[in-house]
Formats: sequence, structure tokens, C-alpha cells
Amino acid sequence: MADQEIRDDPTPAAPPAATPAATPAEPVTTPAAPPAAAAAPPASTRPKRVSYRGRTAGAKVSSNQKEGKVEEFEPFMLLPRGPPPLKEFLDIWDVDVLKQPQQINKQGHHTHLYSSDSLIVRRAQEFQIKITFDRPYKPAEDKFAVEFVIGPSPQYSKGTYIPVFPTEERQSVWRGRVVESSDNVVTMGITTSAECIVGKYMIYIGVVTPYGIRRTRRDPSTDVYILFNPWSPADPVFLDDEEEREECVMNELGIIYHGAYDDVSERAWNYGQFEFGVLDACLFIMDKADMPLSNRGDVVKVTRIASAMLNSRDDDGVLVGNWSGDYTYGVPPTSWTGSVEILLDYAGSRGTPVCYAQCWVFAAVFNTFLRCLGIPGRIVTNFFSAHDNDGNLKMDIILDENGKLDRNRTKDSIWNYHCWNECFMARSDLPPGFGGWQVVDATPQETSDGLFRCGPASVAAIKHGQICYPFDAPFVFAEVNSDVIFYRRQKDGTLEVAKVNPSHVGRMVLTKAVLHDGRRDITDQYKFPEGSPEERRVLEKAEEFGCQRERASVPQGDVEVEIPNLDVRVGDNFDVILKFKNQSDQRRTADVYVTGTVVYYTGVPSAEVVFKTPKVKLDPQQSKEEKVLVRGEDYMHKLVEQANIHIIATGKIKETGQIITAMKVILMHNPKLIVKVTGSPRVSEEMYVSVEFTNPFKFNLENVDLRMEGPGIMPFKRKQYSLIAPGTSITWTETFSPRRAGSTKLIASLDCAALRQVYGETELTVKQ
Amino acid sequence: MADQEIRDDPTPAAPPAATPAATPAEPVTTPAAPPAAAAAPPASTRPKRVSYRGRTAGAKVSSNQKEGKVEEFEPFMLLPRGPPPLKEFLDIWDVDVLKQPQQINKQGHHTHLYSSDSLIVRRAQEFQIKITFDRPYKPAEDKFAVEFVIGPSPQYSKGTYIPVFPTEERQSVWRGRVVESSDNVVTMGITTSAECIVGKYMIYIGVVTPYGIRRTRRDPSTDVYILFNPWSPADPVFLDDEEEREECVMNELGIIYHGAYDDVSERAWNYGQFEFGVLDACLFIMDKADMPLSNRGDVVKVTRIASAMLNSRDDDGVLVGNWSGDYTYGVPPTSWTGSVEILLDYAGSRGTPVCYAQCWVFAAVFNTFLRCLGIPGRIVTNFFSAHDNDGNLKMDIILDENGKLDRNRTKDSIWNYHCWNECFMARSDLPPGFGGWQVVDATPQETSDGLFRCGPASVAAIKHGQICYPFDAPFVFAEVNSDVIFYRRQKDGTLEVAKVNPSHVGRMVLTKAVLHDGRRDITDQYKFPEGSPEERRVLEKAEEFGCQRERASVPQGDVEVEIPNLDVRVGDNFDVILKFKNQSDQRRTADVYVTGTVVYYTGVPSAEVVFKTPKVKLDPQQSKEEKVLVRGEDYMHKLVEQANIHIIATGKIKETGQIITAMKVILMHNPKLIVKVTGSPRVSEEMYVSVEFTNPFKFNLENVDLRMEGPGIMPFKRKQYSLIAPGTSITWTETFSPRRAGSTKLIASLDCAALRQVYGETELTVKQ
Repeated sequence: MADQEIRDDPTPAAPPAATPAATPAEPVTTPAAPPAAAAAPPASTRPKRVSYRGRTAGAKVSSNQKEGKVEEFEPFMLLPRGPPPLKEFLDIWDVDVLKQPQQINKQGHHTHLYSSDSLIVRRAQEFQIKITFDRPYKPAEDKFAVEFVIGPSPQYSKGTYIPVFPTEERQSVWRGRVVESSDNVVTMGITTSAECIVGKYMIYIGVVTPYGIRRTRRDPSTDVYILFNPWSPADPVFLDDEEEREECVMNELGIIYHGAYDDVSERAWNYGQFEFGVLDACLFIMDKADMPLSNRGDVVKVTRIASAMLNSRDDDGVLVGNWSGDYTYGVPPTSWTGSVEILLDYAGSRGTPVCYAQCWVFAAVFNTFLRCLGIPGRIVTNFFSAHDNDGNLKMDIILDENGKLDRNRTKDSIWNYHCWNECFMARSDLPPGFGGWQVVDATPQETSDGLFRCGPASVAAIKHGQICYPFDAPFVFAEVNSDVIFYRRQKDGTLEVAKVNPSHVGRMVLTKAVLHDGRRDITDQYKFPEGSPEERRVLEKAEEFGCQRERASVPQGDVEVEIPNLDVRVGDNFDVILKFKNQSDQRRTADVYVTGTVVYYTGVPSAEVVFKTPKVKLDPQQSKEEKVLVRGEDYMHKLVEQANIHIIATGKIKETGQIITAMKVILMHNPKLIVKVTGSPRVSEEMYVSVEFTNPFKFNLENVDLRMEGPGIMPFKRKQYSLIAPGTSITWTETFSPRRAGSTKLIASLDCAALRQVYGETELTVKQ
Repeated sequence: MADQEIRDDPTPAAPPAATPAATPAEPVTTPAAPPAAAAAPPASTRPKRVSYRGRTAGAKVSSNQKEGKVEEFEPFMLLPRGPPPLKEFLDIWDVDVLKQPQQINKQGHHTHLYSSDSLIVRRAQEFQIKITFDRPYKPAEDKFAVEFVIGPSPQYSKGTYIPVFPTEERQSVWRGRVVESSDNVVTMGITTSAECIVGKYMIYIGVVTPYGIRRTRRDPSTDVYILFNPWSPADPVFLDDEEEREECVMNELGIIYHGAYDDVSERAWNYGQFEFGVLDACLFIMDKADMPLSNRGDVVKVTRIASAMLNSRDDDGVLVGNWSGDYTYGVPPTSWTGSVEILLDYAGSRGTPVCYAQCWVFAAVFNTFLRCLGIPGRIVTNFFSAHDNDGNLKMDIILDENGKLDRNRTKDSIWNYHCWNECFMARSDLPPGFGGWQVVDATPQETSDGLFRCGPASVAAIKHGQICYPFDAPFVFAEVNSDVIFYRRQKDGTLEVAKVNPSHVGRMVLTKAVLHDGRRDITDQYKFPEGSPEERRVLEKAEEFGCQRERASVPQGDVEVEIPNLDVRVGDNFDVILKFKNQSDQRRTADVYVTGTVVYYTGVPSAEVVFKTPKVKLDPQQSKEEKVLVRGEDYMHKLVEQANIHIIATGKIKETGQIITAMKVILMHNPKLIVKVTGSPRVSEEMYVSVEFTNPFKFNLENVDLRMEGPGIMPFKRKQYSLIAPGTSITWTETFSPRRAGSTKLIASLDCAALRQVYGETELTVKQ
């Protein structure tokens, strides 16, 4: 008919054929029911959804979960002449995708640790399936294909329908061969392309008959997940170091660094990327992001989307950031011990953002996402991090005319530390030289260009100041390179630059060592040494690309002050020591202001706890110490989580007008949990773990939450105590039964409004 | 007190002083009331807003509209000794910012056309203000500053508080000088920095007294807008061509091209950037975007944010895209005649997205935004545009085994045309050579990386295939360079590449000529000539950066077919002519399928209107024409807006198996409106305009909307007719009174469900 109407979701009149040949047609699919036209609301309200009619020829293909229906029989257009021949064609009795963890596929593809009943393999590497026919396979006469289908609208040209042929003469974009053929059983070897879509595919076997294609039915037991492959040189995520792969892909246990650069704290974490349900949760995240399937083979796009999806700002992402101290209706960020609960919660609720996270939680869950999909990933911690930086290199601190810190005017805050992710990939979208580790930061920037995502940005490019290459490199560059600029108000009320500290920010970048619990200092991956000519060139190049710096030159002074580190247990009294050194040959008198402020780890002040104004007289060339007492009773009731006190000492030298400054973050060390395991650690044996804690303070701890988990041995568990009185101890005991062998840990945390971030762990090695 | 609590919004204990000196302190501001802590909802619901406490030291500074309170008197910390002196200090009687359109500021800064009572100037260029004191100014003794303040939290280090001093010894980042001093009146010349924040500033004059700073009161009559300055070599938007500036900054009238590349239609548009309220609406857009004030001096960031804000996807932006044909609760995109109504509607409703837009409306309103803020801008139209391209270079068309178009399987659609913006700027964030015109596209991409914004992307980089530089260059590159790939299903059901058409997409890029109504073909700005060695290198480079191309080589055939253009009035019968040419020395027989489909301008099919299957026999070297009749009665009731019929002729040559293809978009030309002006065109004279239309069809036109406007002469007006019967005419008459002199137009549109996109215009020159 000439006037055939084409509806939004057309039903084909005559199904086309699909045979094993060079580039076959897609199977006929019956798409989902046509979407109802969006009900148009009055113009005064905000219409959210408009029908896509007229805008695109079909619905967007961005769901892995939806399944396009595949026809079981597709007749050919042209029927053969003459009477129908006797039944000659192959019939399929069984398809075995060899999916047991101990079989060749999972062992060879390093996917044996996933808790999954499905086959899981990696791309660009051969895996095998066994097809049992009704009679022996005759290559010259029998034509069949193994067909891989993903999503609601399979199309060969979009990479969502891929047939794999057994013979050399006809090959598609994925390679196939007959590994073995004996009796009725054919073992096919299948190798995907190195850039195929990462996700969950359906498998069909299609056999050519004289009348059309006959296919197996939909069989979820043969579904296969295809992941990124750091073991294959053809894959952009190829990482040519087996130990790094063991650490950054296969290790479920991590250590996240925090605290202060000269008093580093550690927090163990269960990434749990192999736990049941986590892989599906990661695919769900990409579906929730509405990410087109055809983009999901591109690791740059996957990591960029995930950077946005990890935070809930403007896209219903996984985690809600909350630094306020009020976590009434969620889990305090310091309480989590692993990623699994978070991801299962998110996927299970069909995408309700999980409360709450701070930077390490965003980073940890993102790390799980990366490792689960096969992208090598690790968490790094940058000490003194200029987050929220507008991409410029200036963090301002305002002092009044006497050199006292003016908190009202000081709006910038430098984070004591910040955690982000690195993922490993080639960057074919950039000029050569910028592959390798890439920064991705899932913690929302308050002042980025409105986007709550960051990266991937090449670490090599950041080190060399080449910040013009995508994505978001200026933000990361500023995070590790900003100058701290002290402005001082003068006697007549004017402001001028008093001091520029170019080495405070980005003091140290740490990540966990490979395959043991040590630290790796990777600062030199991000920055040339302070004061080196390369460093100077890099900063100039960054300025060329628009990063603003403070150019004022401040005359050198001749008095120095510094504050050495302290080891303080929370609740203790302690002395802050200021060490002065007069480097001149004259007397110097310093009017000093010492302010101690409880700060969040973001550097945002909460409450001042000490304020002293010592006058320090220094003879020529003299060194002198001044002590300032800080008492537990002054700060205990004002501590916020993470128990940091920020000491800033500033002052003016009477004789010269020089401004001196020193800053120090003092960590209060919390009590610890004692975790003990009893029983003989074997797979499937019943074992016991106990967590002990004693309240060392003089006040009650109320509504106390304990959490515990251990990769491969114990899923996450919780327990609550309504009250732990001063001096009393609690012991929480659980049983568990290890699921798999190997070295692992049990990680526990304790959390309540009055005391956060109490941790404990124990290692154990499970035998078979 | 040592235990002074610091609240979220601190009130300073003692206000500091601000005197004219090198880098003065910011004035004391009393911020707005502290925000209430966000009520925490249950974890099962989605918490949207969490208190910023702990996350940042103060609220984000991203509103131009909010005003920080500035203290009228700030006492000094240190009071002078001895008895107070007699009153000596300057008193301010008047501040005149010389804001009349005929005065020196607006004339010199090319801002005299704005309908605004406020001063409007451009950055990096001197403007003058007159201050009347109570006595003559004595430079040696009197100290004062002109202070510029923007936003709720003025800070010198953030560029939101800038004092300007009259004397050479003390200068801040903006320069000041005394132009003239006579009697009590001082004329100050002020030159802002070349990267200052663009927006609306408040002016204060601060005078130093022995006791503190005395300031003028808040006076909105002295508010000043500071814009980008394409006339200043220091400004990154500097455009060194006066005619281009007259066109791309100062011209309120534009022409937008559409239709087909060989049958280009024109649509006049009133950008109206100088109309009352438009400048405030543009600043409102940046406030609605929550764009930090400190970023608003950076033209790259401003245009990038605006690209997102113009569409309502995920950020409550200005316009809602709708291509469906159902515009019941909004204005059909083809009905708008200018940007003014849209922007005033958006700002007036405090940011409710306006319904509806298609690509030229997004582009036109964006162009108004650019020109209004002083960024040179123009609209370009790309004919045959591969929008929604994933950043890859393949647009697939599927044919069945006989060569007939398979609409069910063909999901990609090529837009007949697409409009985006170019803006002119230096790109200091990129390596040298990529400044100049930059592409920004505000029409949402369906398949970008989840972001509904595109650009700025350097046109020069796109031309040279250097698509690794930010932002979003691969999408634009694919938009003009994609290949059209025809797949054909063979007799046994397989698909193979039948033809690759590398020259269909990006056929022509047009923009309006400078200062007259002609066209400029700027295709060569985007692409090297087809087939040239440079073009080949560019495509290879783009492939290096990840754009995928189809590599199959298709053997050349010896039969060609093409479809010449037609000039068709809507409703007419017409013949589609197919011209065949047999270039071989043998006979050739072509089995041809000719399909005519009504398409949206996005190429998405709506209804098929003709389908013929001619068999064409060609002798050796013969040329032959075949005609296919298309009747008005077949298509009239199926036409959608923009009245395009897409003819695609495909077929197979019996003797060789060659697939031949030809495609043509046939535009149906609509009737026009006749616009006539009577009266003598002078400023403030009363004049009449009439709009005539006759219904040439055999059916009623119901619920007909007419619109009309003229820059500088008539604000937008509407009129509705419930019925225009076949053959009847209507005449709509309005009076108007030109506001300003010069050449201009009256633009009118008619729109109803049965007939869209009927236009008319007339030129007139208004005398003083």
C-alpha cells in the first residue's frame, strides 16, 4: 500500500532472515509497547517529558536490563523451488557455557571469584561453549551461528547484535572457531572484539534451514557477562603488571588513608566487587544513567558517566553527600565498612540515593564499580586538598592588622585530605603520552561548571601542566597545586599580600601498596619537586591555560615559626608547641595569635577551642619554644566527627612588620575496637568473631551503631546498643562461615553521635 | 573569649576600615539570615538538600541579584590621639554616572541602544562618572575611592569588591584617574580589568576620615552593568573587524536559514538584545544556573553554562524542546518571531521553562544571550546534520535484499538541517591557534555523555580534526562529517555494506552575511574540500582520536541516478524526476523502489505518501528520465510542520547486482503573509502595519495564531482567529510608534495545527 502509516514502534510486515554469513541481518525483534504520548501539562507548570515522536526514529537504547524479543523462527523471503526435502538440518539439544568457577572460562578470565551463577568472561580473550546437537556436525553442510544479543533493540551496526561463526570463511566482528568436535558435541571458541559493549548478553544458537533460521529459545541460564580485560593487550584497560592487576582488579580489601599528612590514619574497606548482586548493581547504575548501550564499550565514557552517577546531585545517583554532622535519617559516612551494602541498597530500591557519604565513601564505592567491571582502579588520598577551587590556584586566608586570623572573611577552606580515584586506561581520545592512570573524582565540586563529575583526567597531563585536555584537568591541577595566600589588613585598613605558601596544598598523595598493607607515596606522579625548574615550568604552562596565580612577591622575613606534630588521644590535655627561630642578628619581638579551632576534615571551622596571644622575645639567632595548653574539657564537647583541631599561629614582628604564620592539624586519636576470631579458619567451617569496645570517657555513649563485614567470609552485619556507660565494655559476637579460601580481613566500625570513627580489624587466612 | 562559637554566618565583632590604598579590605557586610538546617527526610525518600555546614565555610556566591549590605560607616580600629579635629573631610553631594544614551559613556561603549535606565559599559575601556563634593577636591589631603560591589558577599580576592582610586600612587586591579576637577566636581575615569566579572554592580563612594570610612548610601540609580567588550584588544572576545561587530553584537535583526541545501528557506528573527528587560533576563539565567560570580568573567565558562541553561533538560533551563507536533500547552516552535517574549517569560516566571523550542529557537535565544552580554555571536545552519551521533561517524540506512528502504530497521535519522551558534573568543585554555569562532550548541543531544550542552568547541580544531580539545568537539565533528552507510540484505539474508556516501552529511554551512540580508557559505571553515588530501588527513586524525568510520570498500558501479530539485507549493501535484545514466557499454536494467515519506526536519519519518516500483531499462551509455507523480491529495493530510517530503530512490541493477541510491528532500513552499506599513516612518510617529493572509486550500484553518514584532519599533503582539475558511482572507492591523531610528523590519508569523510556518516581513527605515 502506498499509504502505509509508520507508527512510532513499527511491527515489521515480513521478518527478514538471518544466516551465518558475512554481516547478517539482525533478528526480528518486537519492541516494547509504544510509549504513551506524554500528557501535556499547562504551560504554567514544568513539563518534564515530551514524546520523542519527531525527534528520534525510535526510543533511546540505553537499558541493559530490557530484553529485545528474538524470534524463534525467521522464514526466508525466497522459498526454494520443488518439494520440501527431508529433515536434514541440525537440531540443538543442549548449550553448556562452562560457567562453573573451576572450569576453563572463569579460571582463564580471572572471573572465578564472582558470586554468580552466570558465565562471566572478559573481552578480547577466547572463551568456550559446548553445543550438543542431535547428530555430528558436518562443517561443509551445516550452517549455524552463536548469536549474542544485548538490550531492547539489537542491531548489528550498533554492536548490540553479534553473530559468531564457526568457520574461517565467514567471520563477524567477534571471532569464532571450532575448538573440538566429537560425536554430537561441538566446542566453540569465541573471542569478542576489544571494544565490545560491556554488560550482560543473551545467547542464542541459530541454525540455517532451507526455509529460514531456527533458533534456541530464550535461556537465562546461558546469559553471559562480558567485562573489561586488563589482561589483554588489545583492550584499552590493558595493565601490563600482574601484581598491579592482582591489587587493582582482584583485591576486594583496601586501605584508605586519611587524617593528616604527618599523622596518617588508615581505614580498611571491603570493596566487595565479587559479592553477589554487585555486578548487577553496577550495570544498573549505567541503566539509571540512561547511558546508551552503544557507548558502553568505551572506558572513557563509562568512567565519566560513573563519576556523575556516584553522587546524587542532579541525576539520582548512588550517594548523597553530607558533611553537616546531622545524619539522623541515614548512615553516618564514617560508619560504613564496605561498598556492598550501599550498592545493593541502591539497586534494590531501583535507584533511590543512599544516605550518606563523604569523599572516601564516594571513592570507595566508585572503586568497587571500577574493579567489578574490570577497570583497574585504586583510591588515592591527597593531603591538604584545595577542593572547590574554581580551577584557580588561590586559597585565601585573611588576617587582621595584627596578624590575627579573621575567620569571618576567610571563606576558602582547604581540606585536610581528599580521596579520589585513579583508573588505568589508554586515552585514544588524546594525543599520545597521556594514557595510564587517570583521575576520576566522584565527590561533587561546589564550584565546577555546574557539573557534579570530574574526569577522567590524565595524571601525566596534570603533572606536566597540560591541563587543556579533557576532562576537568584544571580542577584536579588546582587541587594539588594551589597556593595559600595570606592577606593582612594594615594599620590604616588596607589589605596586602603578606605571605604566599606554595607548598602547603598537595603535600602528599598516598595510595595503598600492591598486595600488602603498606603505603605508596605517589606525590611525584602528580608534581615535580617543589622549587625545581620543571615545577616552575609546569606552573607557567598552567597559567597559560588560564589557571590564575598570585603574582605578588613578598619580601623574605628573618623569623620562622613552626609547629611540630603531636600524638594525642581524644580527651587528653596537650601542649601545642611553637618553635621560633630568629635568623637575624638583631632582637626580634613577635606578637603572636594562636587559635585552635575544631574543624571538619574539609577545613571548615566549627568552634574555637583555644585562643592565646603570647608575646615572644627573641635574641639574635635565638631559637625558642612557646607552649600553649589545650585542655580536654575545652574541646571534648565541641569535637565533630574526625576529631581534628586546626592550630594556626600568626603574628607580626614588631621591628620589621613581617608576618609569620604556621599551621598544623592535630588529630585526636580515637579508641579502637578489638576484633578477635576463634575457630579454625576453613571454608564452610563455623567460626566466631568478637568485637570488644570499652568507653574510656566520662560521658555516656548513646545509640551506638556497630557494623562488621569481611570479604569472602562474612556479609555485612549490624548491631545497636542504646547505651554504653562510662568505663563499661561491650562485646559483640557473631558466627560466620567462610565462603572462600585466601587471605582476608574482618573489618568493624563503631559510630554514635558523641563518638565517630572507631575502627578495628583482624586478618585471617582461610584454608580450603 | 577563648570559646567563641563561630556560627554559619558570622557577624563581625569590629568592622574593619577600608581606605584608598593598595589593596583595601572589603567593606563589612551583613550577610542574609543563616539558612535553616535542612529538615532531614526519611531515608526511603530522596533527600535533596543537605545543610552546607561542614562542607563549605559559607554559602556559595552565585547570585548577581542578591546584594551584600555595605556599611555606611566603618570606624578604624585605632583611633587617633588628641581631641577630634574640626570637620575637614569631604562630603558627597551627588554622583552622576553619565548614563544617558547620548552621553559619553554609552556612546563610547556602544551601549546606547539598550532600553535601560542604568549605566551600561564594557570592560577594559574607560568610562566616566562625576562626583560633586561639598568643596573643591584637594588631591594631597583628600582620600576617597569609587567602590564597585557585586553580589551578596563582596571580597576583593574574588573580584566581587573593587575599589578604584583617583591617584597614581595607589591603584587597584581597576584603574582610576581624575579626568577633570573643577569647582566641587570631580570627573573620574574608570577602566575595569579585561577579565572582570560581567554583571550588575553597585557603586559606592568611600571617603577617608580620621575616624573611619564614610560611604554614600545604597543608590540603585548609580548601578552599572559591565559587559564583555569586543572593541578592546585586551578582552578575550576582541573581534578586530568593525563590520563583524556591527553584525554580530549590535544587530538585533537576523536571518536563520533552514529548508534544504539546494532550496534554502529564510526566516527573519528579532534577537531583541537591547529590549527592556532582556539584559536582566540574561543575568537571571546565570543566577538560575547557580554559576559562581567569580566565574562570570570567563567567557569560556559563561558560554558553556549558557549552552546547558538554554535547554530545560536537567536544569530548569529556558526552553523545552518539542518535535512531536503536539504543542497544545505551549507555543509551537515555528510560531515565534523573536527571542524577547521567551526571555521575559522565563525571567518573569522566576525560571519556569518556556514551551516550546526546536533547534533554531534554542540557537536564536542563545544568540540573544551572547549579543546582549557583548560576546560576538551568530547562528549557523548545517544542511544534512548528523545530530545524535554518539561521536561516531556512521549514519546507517538499511535496505532489504531488493534494495528497498527498510524503515523498521533504519533507526538513525539525518536532520535536514540543524542550527547552532558560533561565538567569538580567544581560547586561552587551549594551545595557540584555536581561538576565533567557537561552536556552541544548545539543542539537547540525545546521546551525548548525559550532558545536555555542547561546546564551546573551536571551529579551527574541528576543521583540522584536532578533536581532543575541550569541549565536545567529537560531537560537532561528526555532525558535519558523518558518512551515510547503506547496508543491504542479500538474497540469503545477510547484510553487507552496499554504499558509503561520505559527502551527504554536512553539505553546506550557512550564516547571514554581514550587515545585509545575503548568505555566507562558511562550509570551508568547517571542512576541507571533499576528496582533498587535507580532508583525508583530517578524517584519519579524527579516527586516531576515536571517531569510528566505516572502512568497507564498495566497488564502483556504472549506473548513476539523481533527483533534481523541484519548486513545489504546498498542495500542488508534482512529478519527482529520476535521472538515470548508464555509463557502461552494456545494457542495464534497474529494479527501482521510489519511496516518498513525509519527514520531520529531523529526518524522522512520519507517513509514507508514495511508493512506486518502476523498472528502468537502459541502453549502453543511455541517459533516461523516469517520472513519479505525487499528488496533493495523497500528502496534504499527512504533512507535519515544515512540510518536507523525503524521496529516496534505491534499486538494484539486474546485470551487476550494483545498488544505486539517490535521496532528495522536497520542500513544500507555504503561502506567505503580506506585511505593509503605512504612515511616515519617524521616531515617535504613530504608524500602521497590516498583515494579510488568504487561505489557498480547500479546508478550514482553525485556531490560527498570528504574531508580530519589530526591533526598536514594535514589541511582540499576538492575534488569534478561530476560523479562516477556504478562499477567505484576513487582515490584521496594528498601530505602533517607533522608539528609535535606523533600518529595521516588521516580522510576522502565522501558525495553526493544519498549517505552520507561514511568514512575512517588511523593511522600513525610521528617521529621527
